[in-house]
Parts: sequence; C-alpha cells; structure tokens
Amino acid sequence: MYPNSIKKLIDSFKCLPGIGNKTAERLAFSMIDFDKENLTVFSNSILDVRDKIFRCRECGNISDGEICLICSSEVRDKKLIFVVEKPKDIILFEKLGIFKGIYHVLEGLISPIDGIGPDEITIKKLVDRIESNKVEELIFALRPSIEGETTMQYISRLLEDKNIKISKIATGIPMGTDMEYIDSLTLELAIDERKKVN
Amino acid sequence: MYPNSIKKLIDSFKCLPGIGNKTAERLAFSMIDFDKENLTVFSNSILDVRDKIFRCRECGNISDGEICLICSSEVRDKKLIFVVEKPKDIILFEKLGIFKGIYHVLEGLISPIDGIGPDEITIKKLVDRIESNKVEELIFALRPSIEGETTMQYISRLLEDKNIKISKIATGIPMGTDMEYIDSLTLELAIDERKKVN
Repeated sequence: MYPNSIKKLIDSFKCLPGIGNKTAERLAFSMIDFDKENLTVFSNSILDVRDKIFRCRECGNISDGEICLICSSEVRDKKLIFVVEKPKDIILFEKLGIFKGIYHVLEGLISPIDGIGPDEITIKKLVDRIESNKVEELIFALRPSIEGETTMQYISRLLEDKNIKISKIATGIPMGTDMEYIDSLTLELAIDERKKVN
Repeated sequence: MYPNSIKKLIDSFKCLPGIGNKTAERLAFSMIDFDKENLTVFSNSILDVRDKIFRCRECGNISDGEICLICSSEVRDKKLIFVVEKPKDIILFEKLGIFKGIYHVLEGLISPIDGIGPDEITIKKLVDRIESNKVEELIFALRPSIEGETTMQYISRLLEDKNIKISKIATGIPMGTDMEYIDSLTLELAIDERKKVN
C-alpha cells in the first residue's frame, strides 16, 4: 500500500522507544514534506552517530573522542564519583550544573531475573577506577528500584574494607506532585526516610 | 554538553511533528544503543524518501514512479474521484479497502487567514482531470472545518454547470465515543444532520 521507501522508513521509526505503528506512519509521512537539504542533514546525523560516537574509555560516557570532556577536564574532582546507569543520566545531572566530580556509567543494574549479574555491568571497572584514582566518595544516582538497591548493596559490600564515603540520592515525593498520583511504595519510603523539621 | 553528532540528531528529530526537546533527546540517545547495521538502514531509508518518492502526476499521491499504483490500476473506476487534503489520507481510505474510484490530493484547503487561496492548492488540476476524464462523481473527504467547507463550496460552484454528483463524507459522533468528549459544534451538526430511524 505504501511506496517501498516509506515502508522502510516507517519500520526504522518503529525501532525507536515509545514509537508505535501510528506514530511511525505519521513521522515518516511528515518527512515527505521536508526539503531535500533537511533530509540529507537528518540522514547524515544518523551516520555521524554511527561513526563518530564513542564511549569514554574511563567512565563510559558518550564522547566525540577516547576520553570524554568531563573525564579530561582539569577542574573536575577525580576523587568523587557519581554512579549512574546510562550515559543519558549524565546529561540530566550536568544540566543542573552543580556537580563537580566525575561519573561512572554502569551500563545496567544487577537483575537476576533478566540474567544480568555483576559481571554483565561495569562494576569491576568501577572498583579498578576507585583503586587507581584513590577515590574518596561515591554517590549513587540509580533509579529507585529493586535492581538499583541490589546493585548499590553489591558494590557497597565490595568496598567495605576501603575507607570510602558512600551515599545515594534521596527517594521521596517529587516537588509539586499531587500526592494521590504517588505509588504506595514511594509513600512508604518517604515515611521511612522522613526528616526532622527544625 | 552533548557530543556534536548527538546534538545534530536531536535537532533533526525536533523538526518532526509533535516531537519536542525531551522526546528528541530520548530518541537520539536511544539510537546510541542501535547496532551499526540498523543505523545504516535508518539513514538510507531517509535518503530513499529524498530520492525515490515522487508525487503521482495525475492525483498527487506519493508514488515510486510517475504515476501511482491507484491511477495506473486497470480495475479502479476513473469516473469517481475521492477528494482528499493530503497523500496520507489516501492510505487511511485504502486501508478500508472499500473504495474503488481514484483520488485527488488538494495539497491543502482554502484558508484566507493563512494566505491560501484557490490557486495555492490543486483545484485547477482537479477541474482539468474532471473534464478530460469525464468524471461523473466527486466525494469530498476533507477534515470537518471551516476551511474544508469553504473549499468544498468553492469547488462545487466551479462545477455547477457540469452534470456531476457531488457529496461529502458524513460528520457526526464517532462510533464508541463518550458523548461528553464531543465538542459542541460537532453535537450541533449531528443534530442538524439527524437521520430517520426506520
């Protein structure tokens, strides 16, 4: 029913997260009205992601080169590591502009049910970095979940005999949220982790 | 903050309809995890849309060649034209598989407020087709709107002295919709155009 090239484009869009059949159709059809120049740019930017995006050899962040801008920066504190799950999380925290340490991308969380053990993610590399850089503090910024907790527990235990400050970012009710939309687990945790009002 | 190639890809995604900053970021980042083969296919399918998609010389439908599959089909009734706004509308009706005529894509609707007059869309071409093919029936399938009505009125008047059956698809309450979500104009029209229950 579609010309073949539209069909191929729809199939490509469907590989993207959260893009179903209808949205893929809408996006592909909208591109028919793009001018040729725009289509060339779009196509080339995908090839650039294929050819010019590397993972930082140190932290696993996405990077134009072998070492990312954060790891190669002179002003970042190499004694403080912020542990995240995915490269995209780094962008979120960098946007805040308040964090002066460096990062470590785990590339996943321990999840026995999905067959992901400690060796499937970059825990060994993290421990190596901690040792060779004499890291003093670790902050976990993993999404609140059983997998996140398991991963934190596992790593904390590995580092038990080293004198490292370990913390995790707070869970609780997000600012400005209507309480009725918060799930019960979050509510329970928010009560458990209540803070004294001074 | 992003590597340059990611930034370019985010910008490209933002050109798509309904894709804002956050979604564009999410989509671009998801592509980092695609394998190289998939990225090549995606990039090529965009180039194919650039280079291999034409508009049918007859009806304006998108097509692999000069004449689309519908216009070149032997079994379609050339005396009956279904008038639509955009090529994508053709797909919607073709999916139903019940329509045996051919199409005409207007490429827009008359909208003085947006500076779109009768000459900006393919009305002249439609009249030419009607004359040269001795078309007997016209069905308008334009989105219900002031612009749609204006366009239909304009074309109907142009064809007044020709002996052509002209109709439009029905407006009203969609099947399975909760009445409270229907806007008042649609409700009014649905009352005006009520049908006798036999």
